[in-house]
This record gives sequence, C-alpha cells and structure tokens, in this order.
Amino acid sequence: MTNKNIFQPNWIHTEPIKNSFRSIFKYGAPNGFKHPNIRLFQEIKQVFNLSDLDFEKPYSTGNEIINFQKKSNLADYQIEKFISISGTENVSTNEYDRLKYSSGKTVEEALKLRAGEIDKITDLVIHPRNKTEIAEIVTYCNDQKIPIYVFGGGSSVNLGFLPEKGGVTLVLSTHLNKIVALNEKNQTVTVEAGMLGPAFEEALNNAKKLFGAKYEFTCGHFPQSFEYSSVGGWFVTLGSGQQSSHYGDAADLVLGVEIITPTGTILTKNYAATATGPKILDIIKGSEGIFGVVVELTWKIFKHQPQNRQYFSFIFPTWQAAVEASREISQGEFGMPAVFRISDPEETHIGLKLYGIEDTIFDKLMILKGFKPMQRCLFLATADGEKIFAKNIKRKVKQICKKHGAMNLTAFPVKKWEPGRYKDPYMREDLMDFGVIIDTLETSVNWDNLHEVHEKCRNFVKNRPETICMAHSSHFYMQGTNLYFIFIIKETDLKNYLVFQEGLIDMIEKSGGSLSHHHGVGRMIGRLMPKHLGKNQINVLKALKNHFDPNNIMNPGKQLGIF
Amino acid sequence: MTNKNIFQPNWIHTEPIKNSFRSIFKYGAPNGFKHPNIRLFQEIKQVFNLSDLDFEKPYSTGNEIINFQKKSNLADYQIEKFISISGTENVSTNEYDRLKYSSGKTVEEALKLRAGEIDKITDLVIHPRNKTEIAEIVTYCNDQKIPIYVFGGGSSVNLGFLPEKGGVTLVLSTHLNKIVALNEKNQTVTVEAGMLGPAFEEALNNAKKLFGAKYEFTCGHFPQSFEYSSVGGWFVTLGSGQQSSHYGDAADLVLGVEIITPTGTILTKNYAATATGPKILDIIKGSEGIFGVVVELTWKIFKHQPQNRQYFSFIFPTWQAAVEASREISQGEFGMPAVFRISDPEETHIGLKLYGIEDTIFDKLMILKGFKPMQRCLFLATADGEKIFAKNIKRKVKQICKKHGAMNLTAFPVKKWEPGRYKDPYMREDLMDFGVIIDTLETSVNWDNLHEVHEKCRNFVKNRPETICMAHSSHFYMQGTNLYFIFIIKETDLKNYLVFQEGLIDMIEKSGGSLSHHHGVGRMIGRLMPKHLGKNQINVLKALKNHFDPNNIMNPGKQLGIF
Repeated sequence: MTNKNIFQPNWIHTEPIKNSFRSIFKYGAPNGFKHPNIRLFQEIKQVFNLSDLDFEKPYSTGNEIINFQKKSNLADYQIEKFISISGTENVSTNEYDRLKYSSGKTVEEALKLRAGEIDKITDLVIHPRNKTEIAEIVTYCNDQKIPIYVFGGGSSVNLGFLPEKGGVTLVLSTHLNKIVALNEKNQTVTVEAGMLGPAFEEALNNAKKLFGAKYEFTCGHFPQSFEYSSVGGWFVTLGSGQQSSHYGDAADLVLGVEIITPTGTILTKNYAATATGPKILDIIKGSEGIFGVVVELTWKIFKHQPQNRQYFSFIFPTWQAAVEASREISQGEFGMPAVFRISDPEETHIGLKLYGIEDTIFDKLMILKGFKPMQRCLFLATADGEKIFAKNIKRKVKQICKKHGAMNLTAFPVKKWEPGRYKDPYMREDLMDFGVIIDTLETSVNWDNLHEVHEKCRNFVKNRPETICMAHSSHFYMQGTNLYFIFIIKETDLKNYLVFQEGLIDMIEKSGGSLSHHHGVGRMIGRLMPKHLGKNQINVLKALKNHFDPNNIMNPGKQLGIF
Repeated sequence: MTNKNIFQPNWIHTEPIKNSFRSIFKYGAPNGFKHPNIRLFQEIKQVFNLSDLDFEKPYSTGNEIINFQKKSNLADYQIEKFISISGTENVSTNEYDRLKYSSGKTVEEALKLRAGEIDKITDLVIHPRNKTEIAEIVTYCNDQKIPIYVFGGGSSVNLGFLPEKGGVTLVLSTHLNKIVALNEKNQTVTVEAGMLGPAFEEALNNAKKLFGAKYEFTCGHFPQSFEYSSVGGWFVTLGSGQQSSHYGDAADLVLGVEIITPTGTILTKNYAATATGPKILDIIKGSEGIFGVVVELTWKIFKHQPQNRQYFSFIFPTWQAAVEASREISQGEFGMPAVFRISDPEETHIGLKLYGIEDTIFDKLMILKGFKPMQRCLFLATADGEKIFAKNIKRKVKQICKKHGAMNLTAFPVKKWEPGRYKDPYMREDLMDFGVIIDTLETSVNWDNLHEVHEKCRNFVKNRPETICMAHSSHFYMQGTNLYFIFIIKETDLKNYLVFQEGLIDMIEKSGGSLSHHHGVGRMIGRLMPKHLGKNQINVLKALKNHFDPNNIMNPGKQLGIF
C-alpha cells in the first residue's frame, strides 16, 4: 500500500493566496500542512465509494480574492474616537480585516467562505495596545451602546465571537501577548490574555534566561488548538489540554484574573484557597465574553521536567475493557497519567493507519494475539511530574491494563502520535477541497452513562450512509471523562450539514451527555442551553449578565444561546 | 512534672446541667471532655502569672438554668402554617430551643451565655422532615417576608447563622441526615445536607454492607469540627479538612448540589467537567445561606484504605526552614501528604507538651542536636492513596526535610496527635471557666507573603502583655498555604475581647492575608469584606443576592458583611 505509484491527490501544499477566502478559513499556519496519508486516503475512498477520479480536481479551494464592499455601520466620529484611543495603525475598517477577525474555525464558516458567502462581520477591527485602552474602549462602547467582540487566537469552533450585532472586534493577540511577571516563589505567572500558546510555553521553558529563575517551567495546558489559541481564550471557554488529566483543565489553572466590564474593572486576589463568599473568579470562568474583557490572568505553572516523562501504550480487546481499565486508573489514587487517551474501535482503526502502526510488527502481533480490527481499542498515555511518581503511574497502569486483557504496545504508538498532535486539524482543508467534511463534537459523561452516550451518538452518525465516526476519551476524572466524536462525511451543502450537526448535538444532550466538555457553547449549541440547564440556572446567568453589562454590549446576539 | 501530688484544677468533668446556658455553649458532646494536661496548665499559670489559687474555683460555669420569656414575633397563623407543613413535634417556640439553635461556637457567644445575656434569637425552630417541606417553607416565608436561618451542625465560629432579624431557623441535622444514593461506578454519594461527619464517614466506611458496594469508601473531609458539622455546612462555608492537601477542600469535593431559593429550586448536573458557561454550582460555593437552602449534595468519595497510610514527623531548626521545605514539597509534583502541618516555634513549644513529647527521648535528642525551644518547628504528616504512591510521598518528604536541616521524629508525634485531633476545642470550656480565653483566627497566604503575615499578626497578639500565640499551616497548595492562629489570653470582658479580636482581624487583612481560609465570613469578619474584595466584587454578590432572594429573607442581617 505504500507503493509510490499508487495515486494520491495533489493536496494543496501552498500558502493560501493573499487576501483570499482560503487565507481566512485555513486552519493554523499559512504554510502549515498535514495531508491525509495514503492509508487514510484509501479508507476514505472506500467508505465514500469514491475513485481516484473524484480526487483529480478540487471541488472548491476558496483561493479566490475577497472583493466586497460593506461600509462600517459606525459613525465617523465613533471611528475617530477609537483611533484616538489606539492609534490609526491599530484600527481598521478594511473589509478583509473585518471578515478575517469575524471568522472562527467552524465547518459552517468554512463552507460559507468557500462559497464566497459573507456572513455578519464586525464594523471595526481594533488592536488595543494595553489594558488602559481596553478600559477606555469599554467605557466608550457602553456610552454609545456599541457591541464589543473579542478575538484571541481565533480558533473558536462554535461561533464564539461571531459579531452577530456588528460593532467592534478587539484583537488581543496583537499587543496583549506578553508575560507581565513570573513569581517563582508562588509558581505563578501573570500573563496578558492575548498571548498564544507557543510563545507562552516557550517563555516558561526559558524562565532561567528570561526571568532569572532557578527552574524552567511549563504551563501544563496543551489543547489541540495550542498554536492558535490564547491564554485568555483557554480560560473564558473552559478549555482542556491534552495533558489535563494530570495538570487540570484551563480554568483550574487560573489563580486570578483581571476583567474589564461595562460596570467596572475587577482584579481578583491570588489566594490558592479563600473562604470569603462566592468567588468572582469562578463566575468569570466560562463566561465566553458576555461579562467583559479578560485582560490579564495569573496562571499556575509547573516545573518543566521532560526528562521525567514516561510513555506507554496498550491495545485492548474491546471498548468495554478500555473503559473499565480507564475507570480503574482514574479511581486508583496513585496520580493520573498526563496524556490519557482511549480510542474506540473505529478511531483505533483509523489511528493505526494515521500513526503508522498498521502492518507493522505491532499490528501483526496484535492480530496474532486476537485483537481484532473494529473491536480493539488503542490506549495512549504519558506520565509527568517527579520521576518515581511518574514511574509508579506507569507501573500501576501496566498492572491495570494487563488485568483488563490489554497488550503492551510500548512507547512506540504514543511517540508516533505526539509530534503530530497539533497538526490533525490541517487535514480538514484537504478533505473539504474534495467535498468531504471532517468535524468534531464533544461532551462530558460520567462513568455510568458513558456507554449509552457513546452508542446513541455513534448510531446517530452511522445511520447516515457512508460515514466515519471515531470517538475517544481524553480527559479523565475520578467521576467520569469526556467523549470526543470525530466524524467524516461527504457533504457540500451547508443546510444539509447543519441538519446533521444539529441532530448529533440533540442526541448528545438527549442521551445524557453535557452540551460541551471543553469546546464551550458559543452560538452553535446555545439553543439547547435552556433545556440543558433549566430555566432557573439560565436566569442566574441572565442576572449576572444584566449586572455586568446592562446595555448588552459584550459579545451580544445569541451567545451561550441566551444573550 | 508528672508528679501526682502537683495541684491540678478540678476541671468540670460532668455533663452540663439540663437546660443550662452551659448545655448550649459547651463545645461538642455533652459528655465529651479534653482537659489541659499538667504541662499546659503549668505553662498557662506561668504566662498569665497565675497561681494554683486562681484555679481553685471557676470564675463562671454557665451551669445556670435558662429562664427567660420572649414571645415569638411570628403571628399565630404563621406558626400554624409551619406546624401544618412539618408537624407539631418538629416546630418549637420554646425559649431554650430558640436560644440553642440561634447559638454558634464563637467566644463572643460563649462569653454572653456565661453572663446569662440573651442576644438575638430566632422566633421559631423548625426541623423539616424532607426537602419538599423546605421548599414549602421557603415559598411561604418569601410570601410572608419571614427571615430563614439554617442550622446544620451548629459549629459556626463567625456568627454565620445568628438570627439577626428573627424569623425561623431550620435545623437540618434532625431529619435531613441520610445518604440518598451511593454511586460506586462514579465514586460519588448523594447525601442530605444535614448529615453530620461521623455518620457520613461511617456509612461510607461500611459501603459493602450498607450499599452492597465492592469497596469501602471515605469522604476525605475531616475538619476539626468534623463531629459537629454537616456536609451542607462544609460546602456553603468553603471548609477545609485536616487532610485537604491530598483530598481537596470541601467545595472541590462537591460535584453537584440541590438548592432551594426564593426564586426556585436548582439541581445542578453532576459532570466532573463541563464547558457550558459559568457554573451555578460554583456560585453556591461559599454562599453561606444567603441565596437559599442547600438540601442535597453529590460528593466525591475515595477508596477507604487506611492500611496504606504512611505517618511521618520531623523537627526543623527554624520556621523559615519548615516553610521552605513545605514549599518544596508542595511544588514537588509527587502528590501531596494528606495531613500536612507545620507549627511555628510557639505552637511547637505547646504542641510538644500537649502531644506528650516534652521530656521524652525525642525531646532530649532534639535538644542534643541543637533544635532549640522557641526556635524549632514541628512537622506532622501522613500520606494516603495507593501504597507505592503514599510511600513515595514519604520518601520524597524525607529527602526534602533532611535537605532543610530537619531531624526525623518517626511516626510517633503524628500518631500522638491523630487521636485527639477533634478534641482540642473541648479545652476551651475548661480555660474559660477560669477566665482564660482560647480562640482562633485564620487566613490564606501565598508563599511570598507568608512570613510577613505571620510576623505582623504574631506581633500584634504578643504586643498584648501575657499572651500565648501559636500558629500553624495545615492546608497546602502549590501557590501557598493557610496560617491558623491560636491565641490564649486572660480576659473576661466581652468588649475588651472584641477590641482585641477586631484588631487581629484588621492586621490579617492589612498584612495581605485573606479574610478567611476556611472558617468563612459569617457576621464576624464581614465588616472588612468591602475593603477586602472591593466595591465591584461586592456588587456582583449583591446582584446575585437580589436575583436569588429579592425579599432578603435568606440569612438576612449583616451576613458576609453586606446583606
């Protein structure tokens, strides 16, 4: 199958044309690519009943230049005011800029942009230089009742900053992207909200040189969107990183926050624990921009000790066995693996292709030992922390996996997986070029409803003819985990796609999953919020919204399904 | 010094007289006692310049029968309504009952009661039989604008349920004291809010027999007030147990909650993590009764494996060394000790007397090795969890303590400390009988301000002639810890006492500590809340209060300093 003569599509491997639609919707770095490998390509052709011919010419590329005119709805004097605050060079009415900073990374947006369709766009893009400017902007917008949207890294997959009501979009990553102070004694770092993952982590990894620290540090938060998401975004959307089972979810890692709201600025205190009533810090967690602009955060940091990391992988005979072993590990009270991921049979099937394990000696051994394709399940893990602590996790996990019938695959698969872990989303563009959609939805489950949610959602997807439906659990707690569904379907019609997507969201909720484990709500799944949380909980959120933002200028229009 | 002929006071060792003031203010079980041992007694005499003669006859005992008449301010038809809801046997207008369920465990209350002084009392005591009755009561009280106070275990040390505005007091521990369901798969238990610590823990320790479970469990939360505090109280006051460094603080251990508010009932979902906006569960944490009545909680439980517990103790040459070692342990990423406690030099001095270590071979060895009294600091710890995990914690802690100049004291001191750990408050009555007050105040600190807060607060106390001022840190986090001050002063005048207490609270806040680490706010330290949190944070709490309880019937009157 690795024969070079076998046909492979000419996946686009050039930067999007400047000012094109593609330059907006393409995931990640303009010159970053990860193409489906030949094994995945063969699988897709087979599932969707396609031939090489179908991959000769892209269905759409979106590489057309953007050319539309849409006057800003702001008055000239308002624009002048913003220029007076942030400087001409940091304010733009240009259509391309306005579209760019209004666009996130949903399939819906990509389909529209590929079709040259312009949805709601912001009236003005502002790159504020500091938090003082943001406070001025918020005050002015509150006076003038101008909506404010905030763009951090732009990786939202739920229309979280779609400027539903126009107004201004503040881009935080342009200037608010620095470390304010590292406090080695407390093991915390104060950071501006717009700093993106790689710069943040690199600074912490070089704390000795940059801050005269005694140790190097790590932020502990590595979501798939790491390279194109911001520290503030991680916090306000309740994100989770790929090592969350050990380090905690994003909101757990924040000790203090500074938020500028229409009602005033709040700087919370940085105690690890305090018993002075309900915590305003907690209230801002998950607020997704509806209360104000988070401008700075105090983040908990950890010693950077990659030399201690342990790697281990297993294959389980069944999904049931993989889940049971994961539960036993999560409830084992010996610490948690950092990366901790089990793939269901279909994801295992694809994963073995993607990570280059299919047809290797490992694969042959697995088959020999009776681990059957479309039944077997891959388990990938690492352990971080102090060396003996990490080794003991590995030792205990081995014991538990063995007890549940797993075969040890050594460090090989997880080491194959690790380097590409931020790159998988790049494949989205390649497939969409040929009318195939790859998208994801995710949910939280407790141990006692995991199988029901998994089965019902999987059945929903598979009921549509010709689909790939993969799922994994990758964030573990003593009480449960998440389910992350990745589906691949052949579809080019937006309406059809949305009907399918809505059906799956409905099924997640109906089967007992949470509406989201770590993607957040945004505008995409908001319609189910009242049903999911109930009227009384929604009313609490409304009361808070009304307090912080009485004129409804912060991320207004359907955000969280309620504002 | 252990000579039997040496004078010791006739500490009261009989149950308080029925219906006496003492029967209300006495801490803990009516027949529970822990008297100061001879070493502590000698120390107290010396510090306060007292002689045996001063301890021949108690200054006050409060053993007088309560006899006062105070008509309930409720109308007869209102009382009839409550009787119709909860039954005659569960409603009381009796003065003794009303005083009893209006009284917590502050020194202020004890001094008043010893003087026969009646402060504000509730108009009616109700023991609701279930949550349906509570919902009816809340609805009716909201209609009639009758204040509601909630009595759980009654161990508040900050006037947290003092019926400032009269009305009704709901006693939850009488009937709402059962486990609703144990979910072994999710490792959670749903429990009624009024269940007290011992019954809760005992049921979990017997999960095999009681619930047909595969394992026995533990709740992981063991505050000093364990025997006389309720699960709901732990949660709404943001309590911390003596093993919190491993298990987490009370609010961390709650996965879901049911709260009945004047605006309606909220039952949150039990996901370990979910990204569906700000969490109502988080908002109820620390709400101290101002939003509604918490009736049920879903609590995270742990395997009960006492056979794995490791015990270890050390003595450090100085407080600085003890703190530095504790920081290194807390930031060591090998898991945390469960009990984890360092005593400052004065607490060490008293502790060695209390735990029977003074003059033992350990003490002699310490002296020999240069660990000087009033400089040396005691470190007590245990480790829980899986066996190798716990052993590795012990191993690492040993390494770190040694590095910081500590001497290993083996398991002996912590095993001496453990059995009496809930009993120390009993000594309060003995001392107060002779005009000596023992009381506590506590705060949170980060590593970088721990020493400043400790010094300033200690200096404040020691500036008063003749005081004992002990302090320990006993709840550790990567970013900091708590400081728990225990002071002993000779004082019988309430006004003088309050001036002293207020001064120390002021100093805690001024020096940079939090207003409370785990006692909560109540009415005692509330006056500093606006200064501590700032107007903008207080206004958020007010907005929430106004939403949940527009008629201000829930725990009204100075609670949290603002309502």
